[in-house]
Amino acid sequence: MTKDKRMAIFGLGSMGLGVGNSLLRAGILAHGFDVRSDVQASFIASGGAVGTPAQIASDLSTVITVVLNAAQTEDVLFGKPGIVPLLPSGAVVISCATVAPEFARAMESRCNDHGVFYLDAPISGGSVKASAGQLSIMAAGSQSAFDAAKPALDAISETVFDLGRQAGSGSAMKAVNQLLAGVHIAAMSEAITFGMTQGVAPEAFLNVIKNCAGTSWMLENRAPRIVEGDYTPHSQVNIWPKDLGIVLDIARSAGFSAPLTATAFQQYMVAVGMGLGQEDDAALAKVYARNSGLHLPGDKR
Amino acid sequence: MTKDKRMAIFGLGSMGLGVGNSLLRAGILAHGFDVRSDVQASFIASGGAVGTPAQIASDLSTVITVVLNAAQTEDVLFGKPGIVPLLPSGAVVISCATVAPEFARAMESRCNDHGVFYLDAPISGGSVKASAGQLSIMAAGSQSAFDAAKPALDAISETVFDLGRQAGSGSAMKAVNQLLAGVHIAAMSEAITFGMTQGVAPEAFLNVIKNCAGTSWMLENRAPRIVEGDYTPHSQVNIWPKDLGIVLDIARSAGFSAPLTATAFQQYMVAVGMGLGQEDDAALAKVYARNSGLHLPGDKR
Repeated sequence: MTKDKRMAIFGLGSMGLGVGNSLLRAGILAHGFDVRSDVQASFIASGGAVGTPAQIASDLSTVITVVLNAAQTEDVLFGKPGIVPLLPSGAVVISCATVAPEFARAMESRCNDHGVFYLDAPISGGSVKASAGQLSIMAAGSQSAFDAAKPALDAISETVFDLGRQAGSGSAMKAVNQLLAGVHIAAMSEAITFGMTQGVAPEAFLNVIKNCAGTSWMLENRAPRIVEGDYTPHSQVNIWPKDLGIVLDIARSAGFSAPLTATAFQQYMVAVGMGLGQEDDAALAKVYARNSGLHLPGDKR
Repeated sequence: MTKDKRMAIFGLGSMGLGVGNSLLRAGILAHGFDVRSDVQASFIASGGAVGTPAQIASDLSTVITVVLNAAQTEDVLFGKPGIVPLLPSGAVVISCATVAPEFARAMESRCNDHGVFYLDAPISGGSVKASAGQLSIMAAGSQSAFDAAKPALDAISETVFDLGRQAGSGSAMKAVNQLLAGVHIAAMSEAITFGMTQGVAPEAFLNVIKNCAGTSWMLENRAPRIVEGDYTPHSQVNIWPKDLGIVLDIARSAGFSAPLTATAFQQYMVAVGMGLGQEDDAALAKVYARNSGLHLPGDKR
């Protein structure tokens, strides 16, 4: 255990838990906090350190927020009580939620007011990569923020994209990636079901298209779930109204027309309305199947 | 020269010319026909055989149509005069244009009425692959059609996907691929310009996103053209209103709602309306740039 590197993770969902376990595996004294007390107790049982935020904050080098959105990030950092005013000078906040660039810049400024560095650090890679300490991180912040964050980044990530010296650029790139990823899942769903109307079986779709110009990372990752009829959530449908909503909010602020994003957003909203929010996001294909009377693999008829 | 394998290609555009040259390289006696007499003369100068369709039709083993659409295909095969009624029994038509599956089935039936086999064989891969004899072909037809087409397929293709024993399945898979490819180019265009509004430079976009979950084959192929500001056409904007139009026609016939395809189609229509039809399809980004006052690399300001 590297006792002089005491860190805290806020948010122990599938991504945060992977981050926490990666820290423990690296010999870091790691505290994990979650509003769900059973999840928090489970992390402690697997080696997490004990103590309330108020008790341990002054000894922390690093705080990593792996919460759902901007509101939860702000609540952890500056709520009542927030952790940032309790941190020692020179500590760093690594903020991993997908947020608007403007929000990231505001958080950087407020952290700096307390002598705390802020790394805008949205993550990508899914829960498997998170558990393996192999996340991709789209990072932006001051050189001091990068330097302070290095021990944590080394433990949790495989690739750190350095996107510049001011917070916001990481969140901007993450929003760009989510725009594409969300539209590509919807395009795959549209294409695989369109093919079914013409007698193209989902398995043939996958086997041919993955070798053609129509392929995408998301198609190769998600289409097999439709072929198998297995919607056990790796990444939930619920992620997309949130993340594409952030993209559309940013776009609106910028006076940018994003018609494909807006269209995909609506399809995800239908999926949520159909009660599919907690299924794997490949379940977006069920929206298309229902709309055209198709039966996907594994469908109860 | 394999004199007993006499073939004819109709349509000597960038794809058809590549197909024709691949046949010549394989030692096949190949005739090339095009409505543009200079293009046809140039193919003969580079080794193509001489003679009008009426003069040579009865000696042909194989006809390959590499024309723009269904109307041109039908005109070559059954127009006044069409080639099919002049072909010997047992000859095969290899139809490469992107057409509706229903049209392919109708052509198969009409060819069979003349004792001619028909291979539904849309091609993919672009002009470079066509020239190299390395096309991907999404093929469907009777076993006799496949057998008769084999010498030609061997000369022009790297991969032949066998999509079944009836014409139409090849065209269906091609439509699925075009749906995805067209939407992905539009999504890339939307994302790269959205990023620019948030300070993400096109080059940073390409370097980061190609390593992330948001990537696609089309993004990796087309985004470099935007980064370079070079819209020399490899594949023209004009392809997409045609091909996505075919997808939307098929979808309408099938009672299938395809909102992303419909949205992408509209963006390509704007590009055509802006006079960009003959530029490379990466120029779709110019629609987004104009709509939000952005300057792409290479823009005259």
